[in-house]
Amino acid sequence: MPERLGPPLKEPLFERVAIIGLGLIGSSIIRAARQLNLARDLVAVDANEAVLARVRELKIADEVTADAAVGVRDADLVILCVPVGACGVVARAMRGGLKAGAIVSDVGSVKASVMAQVEPHLPDGVHFVPAHPVAGTEHSGPDAGFSTLFHNRWCILTPREETDEAATGRVRAFWEAMGSNVEVMSAQHHDLVLAITSHVPHLIAYNIVGTAADLETVTQSEVIKFSAGGFRDFTRIAASDPTMWRDVFLHNKEAVLEMLGRLNEDIALLARAIRWGEGDKLFDLFTRTRAIRRGIISEGQDAAEPDFGRRRQG
Amino acid sequence: MPERLGPPLKEPLFERVAIIGLGLIGSSIIRAARQLNLARDLVAVDANEAVLARVRELKIADEVTADAAVGVRDADLVILCVPVGACGVVARAMRGGLKAGAIVSDVGSVKASVMAQVEPHLPDGVHFVPAHPVAGTEHSGPDAGFSTLFHNRWCILTPREETDEAATGRVRAFWEAMGSNVEVMSAQHHDLVLAITSHVPHLIAYNIVGTAADLETVTQSEVIKFSAGGFRDFTRIAASDPTMWRDVFLHNKEAVLEMLGRLNEDIALLARAIRWGEGDKLFDLFTRTRAIRRGIISEGQDAAEPDFGRRRQG
Repeated sequence: MPERLGPPLKEPLFERVAIIGLGLIGSSIIRAARQLNLARDLVAVDANEAVLARVRELKIADEVTADAAVGVRDADLVILCVPVGACGVVARAMRGGLKAGAIVSDVGSVKASVMAQVEPHLPDGVHFVPAHPVAGTEHSGPDAGFSTLFHNRWCILTPREETDEAATGRVRAFWEAMGSNVEVMSAQHHDLVLAITSHVPHLIAYNIVGTAADLETVTQSEVIKFSAGGFRDFTRIAASDPTMWRDVFLHNKEAVLEMLGRLNEDIALLARAIRWGEGDKLFDLFTRTRAIRRGIISEGQDAAEPDFGRRRQG
Repeated sequence: MPERLGPPLKEPLFERVAIIGLGLIGSSIIRAARQLNLARDLVAVDANEAVLARVRELKIADEVTADAAVGVRDADLVILCVPVGACGVVARAMRGGLKAGAIVSDVGSVKASVMAQVEPHLPDGVHFVPAHPVAGTEHSGPDAGFSTLFHNRWCILTPREETDEAATGRVRAFWEAMGSNVEVMSAQHHDLVLAITSHVPHLIAYNIVGTAADLETVTQSEVIKFSAGGFRDFTRIAASDPTMWRDVFLHNKEAVLEMLGRLNEDIALLARAIRWGEGDKLFDLFTRTRAIRRGIISEGQDAAEPDFGRRRQG
């Protein structure tokens, strides 16, 4: 996984890009856009004064404002980087400032709900190209961002059939410039794919960490001490931003519950195999799952080193 | 996490140590023992000819044999590093070679079952000090081992009350020399603690990877592509050795099923909160789980860097 950005563009892709929400994702986009010269002007919009102050200190934006309608003025690209549940409110707040022909995009982990929230607020002549960069870390806030976050990661676009193709093409170019591979699919299919590759894993991780914390027979200190047996891998994603994840589950309810139902059926089968000592069934599953891991490594979506390459010597 | 071994001992702790089973754990022990001068002679025993040939090539043992009874002859410490389900068979095979006063230990992830399997085969005057180093990677075999695997990890000893204290002390010293922190507890408590910190996480990881592979609405290629959303973290432990893990579940059946039952109850609550849009319940859990992650990092049981420190720039 070479994690390196290319050289800056000679001519920026956009004149003025406004990023709304300067958390992990928003602050990573603004850093990458600046480093790669993707926009002549970069505007940071955030409703949180502490975040804005920090963005000023970090000097990662050309302009900084708490007012969405002011921030998006004259922008040819606006990217909503707020929790999925806040997209409708932010769209309404900024609508007065949007110029004709502007492209609005987002980075939400759920697409159908975001489209339903945002579209009613957009004036005619503004193009909405929903996007979801499948990248992140367990850390949050403007200090957590870094310019290579999207490098060699997938970014999924879910435009409607009637969406302006040129607008979709410009959003695609923006993400490709940051090193992402871009795929286009329907919002409905996106929400199903992400339910299994991201939402349910997070839910299960939060859940197992919660279950462990509540045991009366095993102390929390024991759980922490002996976490290297596998548990600690779950705690990483269970440390992700609570607001973002609450919104993901509430806004992708059907797909998450459907995938969770399937998972539960499979867990019941496994529990039964354990109860009845059916070692062959366990062995078959445990062999099959290795192949998926190999696929992920050969596609460059994870480190091949043991333990994700956690530092070691020897 | 400084991953460095100390200087070699001036005088070895044991004259002759036999390691039975040269997989990830056995080959890591033999490498560490050699590097630290923990034994004057190191004997490698493995029933698999291909493994023995590889151990010879790697030159990590002083003697190499397929015959357990021959391998343990004159050893003052014998460590079983075979899958949990094979411990009884191996104990029976080696019993004729054990010398009086020898210490037998193991590295199994389940303790009550291993003790029940091994103890009937040990002659009087041989001490059994069961051990479980809580360390590992998803890789298997003699090439996967490395001498720092146990550094800053916990090793749990589960001797019986009547076990010779000097024998327990010598096994403790052996693990401490390899950089481990040692804790003593009952086999029953060990099996409960590990069920939640290791066994159930592995089962859930295997399960979710299996569920994802079986979907008819999402292709395997999509699961792989978009795994960076969280799924890939589960695939690491779902790539662990299938034989070892089959045995763990079959031999820690009660504790695993008990923990799995609790997990299922908690999943049902979460699913209900999602279905009814109870965002506060989700938010509370997701906030609580961050604290456990912080505990694991502050206790040095994981990397604080985002993404476990997977390589990146920027």
